[in-house]
Amino acid sequence: MSLSRTDKASALTGFFAPGTIAIVGASDSSMWSRAAFHNLRGMHEHVHLVNPKRDIVHGRKVFASLRDVPVAIDTALILTDQLEGVLADAAELGIRNIVPIAAGFAEAGEAGVERQRKLVAAAEGAGQLVFGPNNMGFVNVHRNVWCFTNVLPDFRPGGVALVTQSGAVVDNIRNIIVAKDVGISHALTVGNEAMIDVVDCMNYLVDNDDCRVIALFMESIRDPQAFMDAARRAFEAGKPVVACKIGRSERGKRAAEAHTGGLAADDRVVDAVFRQLGVIRVDSVEDLLITAAALDGYGELSGDRVAFLTGSGAACGMICDLAEKHRIELSDLSEGTRRKLRDEILPPFAAAQNPLDFTAYAVMDPSLPPNAMRALAADENTDIVVHVTANLPQEESPHTALMDQAVQRMVGVYNESPKPFVHMDFFSIDYTPYARAYRERHGLPFVLPSIEKGVPALARALWWSRRRREGLGIASQEPDAAAVAGGTGAWSEAVARDYLAGQGVPVAPARLAATAEEAVAAARETGGPVAMKLVSAQIAHKSDIGGVRLGVDGDDAVRDAFVAIVAAGGSVPGAVVDGVLVSPMRTGGVEMLVGVVRDPHWGPVLAIGLGGVFVEILGDSALRVLPVSREEIGRMIDELAGRPLLDGARGLKPANRDRLIAVIAAIADAAWRLGDRLEALEVNPLRVDGDEVEALDALISWRAEGPVNVQEEEHLA
Amino acid sequence: MSLSRTDKASALTGFFAPGTIAIVGASDSSMWSRAAFHNLRGMHEHVHLVNPKRDIVHGRKVFASLRDVPVAIDTALILTDQLEGVLADAAELGIRNIVPIAAGFAEAGEAGVERQRKLVAAAEGAGQLVFGPNNMGFVNVHRNVWCFTNVLPDFRPGGVALVTQSGAVVDNIRNIIVAKDVGISHALTVGNEAMIDVVDCMNYLVDNDDCRVIALFMESIRDPQAFMDAARRAFEAGKPVVACKIGRSERGKRAAEAHTGGLAADDRVVDAVFRQLGVIRVDSVEDLLITAAALDGYGELSGDRVAFLTGSGAACGMICDLAEKHRIELSDLSEGTRRKLRDEILPPFAAAQNPLDFTAYAVMDPSLPPNAMRALAADENTDIVVHVTANLPQEESPHTALMDQAVQRMVGVYNESPKPFVHMDFFSIDYTPYARAYRERHGLPFVLPSIEKGVPALARALWWSRRRREGLGIASQEPDAAAVAGGTGAWSEAVARDYLAGQGVPVAPARLAATAEEAVAAARETGGPVAMKLVSAQIAHKSDIGGVRLGVDGDDAVRDAFVAIVAAGGSVPGAVVDGVLVSPMRTGGVEMLVGVVRDPHWGPVLAIGLGGVFVEILGDSALRVLPVSREEIGRMIDELAGRPLLDGARGLKPANRDRLIAVIAAIADAAWRLGDRLEALEVNPLRVDGDEVEALDALISWRAEGPVNVQEEEHLA
Repeated sequence: MSLSRTDKASALTGFFAPGTIAIVGASDSSMWSRAAFHNLRGMHEHVHLVNPKRDIVHGRKVFASLRDVPVAIDTALILTDQLEGVLADAAELGIRNIVPIAAGFAEAGEAGVERQRKLVAAAEGAGQLVFGPNNMGFVNVHRNVWCFTNVLPDFRPGGVALVTQSGAVVDNIRNIIVAKDVGISHALTVGNEAMIDVVDCMNYLVDNDDCRVIALFMESIRDPQAFMDAARRAFEAGKPVVACKIGRSERGKRAAEAHTGGLAADDRVVDAVFRQLGVIRVDSVEDLLITAAALDGYGELSGDRVAFLTGSGAACGMICDLAEKHRIELSDLSEGTRRKLRDEILPPFAAAQNPLDFTAYAVMDPSLPPNAMRALAADENTDIVVHVTANLPQEESPHTALMDQAVQRMVGVYNESPKPFVHMDFFSIDYTPYARAYRERHGLPFVLPSIEKGVPALARALWWSRRRREGLGIASQEPDAAAVAGGTGAWSEAVARDYLAGQGVPVAPARLAATAEEAVAAARETGGPVAMKLVSAQIAHKSDIGGVRLGVDGDDAVRDAFVAIVAAGGSVPGAVVDGVLVSPMRTGGVEMLVGVVRDPHWGPVLAIGLGGVFVEILGDSALRVLPVSREEIGRMIDELAGRPLLDGARGLKPANRDRLIAVIAAIADAAWRLGDRLEALEVNPLRVDGDEVEALDALISWRAEGPVNVQEEEHLA
Repeated sequence: MSLSRTDKASALTGFFAPGTIAIVGASDSSMWSRAAFHNLRGMHEHVHLVNPKRDIVHGRKVFASLRDVPVAIDTALILTDQLEGVLADAAELGIRNIVPIAAGFAEAGEAGVERQRKLVAAAEGAGQLVFGPNNMGFVNVHRNVWCFTNVLPDFRPGGVALVTQSGAVVDNIRNIIVAKDVGISHALTVGNEAMIDVVDCMNYLVDNDDCRVIALFMESIRDPQAFMDAARRAFEAGKPVVACKIGRSERGKRAAEAHTGGLAADDRVVDAVFRQLGVIRVDSVEDLLITAAALDGYGELSGDRVAFLTGSGAACGMICDLAEKHRIELSDLSEGTRRKLRDEILPPFAAAQNPLDFTAYAVMDPSLPPNAMRALAADENTDIVVHVTANLPQEESPHTALMDQAVQRMVGVYNESPKPFVHMDFFSIDYTPYARAYRERHGLPFVLPSIEKGVPALARALWWSRRRREGLGIASQEPDAAAVAGGTGAWSEAVARDYLAGQGVPVAPARLAATAEEAVAAARETGGPVAMKLVSAQIAHKSDIGGVRLGVDGDDAVRDAFVAIVAAGGSVPGAVVDGVLVSPMRTGGVEMLVGVVRDPHWGPVLAIGLGGVFVEILGDSALRVLPVSREEIGRMIDELAGRPLLDGARGLKPANRDRLIAVIAAIADAAWRLGDRLEALEVNPLRVDGDEVEALDALISWRAEGPVNVQEEEHLA
């Protein structure tokens, strides 16, 4: 029987902190065995080796079988290919935690999939939990459990928990973790995720006090809904989730039928979900480590306004460029701060500005940098000060004593400062053991390794901290999904309009005319030129077949248009023509597109964009998964490249932002209420003209089949 | 007297390879002196120390003055502040090469500027060349001259010449150069560039056989025209120029009067110039080093189609994402290659694709990777193979022998391959001395340090190599600048149109009407609705004052419009109204904006963009400095985000690309012919509709003053 996610998270607390471990298949000739035994040296008295064909392995007495081990075993690390037999032994002995370092499962073709299915069934039957398979094990640094089949260096104990689907990633970055002095709490390689997936690890880590930051390396997200729940839990717990999710270039592979579907290609939805849930997305493993370590070292930052100081003019230039690119707000130093810097601290040729270059004059006057630091920390417009400087000494040298004094002055300023100081190197070189000890001895915080990497990492930490201050927000309301009976195929525009209007979406007036004379009467009542559109549930793209006439003016023209539109509809086999919608012509303002389309993995996705070239040529749109808060809709608007048009560019009336957000929220809520059978709901265009925001057209279409759980589909595959 | 650039370049050959050096102001208490003496250890017998107050320094006998040194000195490295006195001594002794490591010149306020001016005047008077001041010296690795005032590690001799305006940059990256095993030919810190600037160094390096790649770190480009000449020379010599030019965030600070001026903000012009001249622009010092070292290691690449191979699936994902982002063409493996991989080489569960993951099965079968490499190298659709793998061993270990075999197999494949192999690490750690020796011992090429940094660096090398194959191109013709007499203020639209038409630019027909009846006659002749526009040299923005009427139809309407337009013109004080232009209304197609505006540093800059939101809201435009080739205009079109509209998106007729390029070239040439007094020439809109390309409006404006040499202005400042 499979465990619930809650049960798994609590089971993992024991799983990742075993008191005793058996290495089954231990052998001097196995690289894995040698590595695992070496890594576990901190708990060797609790490690027991099993191999029926050996007496002594790694200089230790070996048991022929798990049954022969004289103590109760918490975790079996299984290196032999005879996994299934060992599993049965373990089951009988009540060993519940299994780490099978074996390949040949779901990653290796159909036979492997079948083998993995059987493995899981057997384990579930015996109440066992299997980690992997096809992984490398796990490390719990603070509990000193290094159950890992490749030799690892000593990680500095810290708050970064690394969870990765790729064992090779940990294998290849183990030296970088040490070289950049990243403090680690866990390293968990989930492999094929047969029973324990990334989400289970996230849930465990949210509840684990040693972990302060969750760093994910993912190739796929197997259970999107559960991922969203876990990300939300982490956010609420104040633990940043930093994720390197590869697969950006797979975007656009799936074409959806509805117009908005084209916008909602996979990777863009991943981006949207991450943004929405405060998950920090990075594009490389290097950025994953540095960003996570920065968040571990500096925690949640209490403001946005950053002052930089350094002794290099070139560094100031690099900082400016990167700060602008990554949208860091450089604080505007107060007049008082500037005066103090100018009159009391800086040499006459230096400028009192941010970034602050205190110049090489610091060589003459060692009090210059600390005085400048203090002045910035006291500045009322500054929340955070970043000190950018040379690398720590890599080895003992004749300058050490002089260097020590400077570092002690610097750390003194950091410690007494009312505002956080962030320490950043100009450029990154790997820590030597001397430098690592030097940093710790002087009580320096985590060092952001370079301007190039540090400024973007700081920007991400600022973003996450801002999101924390704002909160994730809640949907404008929490409507009952499926409150409305669905349909099949598509609803006609008339039905769709009525539904939206009933849900509080402002819809341009329109009358359904069944005859030419009704159309004439409707047009007269409307006054001025009208738009006339075919109404038929069977015809979604009515303009393609001549079912739309715009700017029709005068009785005769209306009559002619009615006849032509109905004839066009009648020419489509199987189409039932309900009549013609007559509505006033609207001009002016900006046209937007607001749609909700079902993503097979993430559920209903809201997409907004500006009409015309923005969506079609530039793909300029913003996405979020439903339900969505009004604050989040505001952020979507801010993401649009075409946003200046909503702010009044090109002589347009500035859009009423609150009104626009309210209308988009109403459309999103209306889609949410249509439940799981909704395929797509699209308002195109939504006309925005100052305070006027109204839907001019609407399309709602349904899935033929009932609700399908993607998870189940995948498990059956 | 100041030397020509050609003379300077040849003087630098001696300057950077002195046979004898005097350190003036040598002192055991000076960090600079100790560092310089230490760095120069390879030529100590040719180094002479001068200090009037000491007998022994650095364990060596000291001379009281330069006059006392018994041999002829080529270069004086001057550490004392008493620079001017030493200079006079040097002049008398015929010492022509001066490296004054002193601050307090142009970087330090007005008095410093004056001091620098005097320094230069004195040096020029004495026929001396001064490097700096306010710099750190220079290194010529192959000549073993390390004339540098901060302790440097031993750089591996190689082909990368680093030229930097910031001394701090070299000071802070010296360890990175070693850690990433970048092979260096020169490190030149130009400081204040009083007499020798970046361009002089470039010219010297183009002619220097030890240098294969020029790497620039720049905060400003003092002499844009000379920079362009030097970049062109380097390109033609097959020496890539890689540049990290900071100051991106200064963009947009200068607002130009003409519409296109807004497009031509400084940094975007720098971008354009670099692109045009094949200069590779990078945004960090790290990318500068890695890209330059990759080009040094692999040279010009002979094709674009790249196959990657690795043993990690996660790495394949990362490579895909980065290759797409940086537009690397992943080769489409031939069916034969796929079959061979599938049937003979790969395990059954591996996919025969690019990037190729040969899987961890390589642990069982060591012949798998070399066989896969050979298959890719033999693939007829592949030009370059990139092997992505783990770091070289960092120290002696029990696995060394096994590793050696694998590396030897690998290098064997590299060496026998008909196609270039590029070697890339998954992730970057700093080279240990062991790893460096290991690489050299096994004859491995330069190792691109990580996927994250290596794939973009490869993309840049591919771009430069492609530009080399294509050539820089020459302007469609080489027109004589200033062949046409200029004007003052602005030309009227009528004059501007006539000029353009005379230069072969297709201009929509228009007739200048001096009276209402002439306008009616012109409109009748044109047929259909017409556009009517005020003609007055004094009124540039005629639509703002009601001087433009569109879609005027019928005699009465034309008459009324004429009267209203002339009245609008008459209401502008000082404006002389020449009449009203009558032209046919054009509809359909796409409107472009083609303009040339004078940049005060770079000269006339051509800007093209699509009308409507593209330029105004998105800033979507492409720039190049004149003169420009037709190939380059094609590249400009390809850069536009709105390009799909020219290719026939949204039901438009695809533009005739050759015709469009020819018309833009004609406009550019027409601007070039107007000479130095031209301020701006703008065609807005240029209508493009399939084969039809024509200017609908034209604006030409002039600078009030005569030609100004920006260089001179700066020297006077």
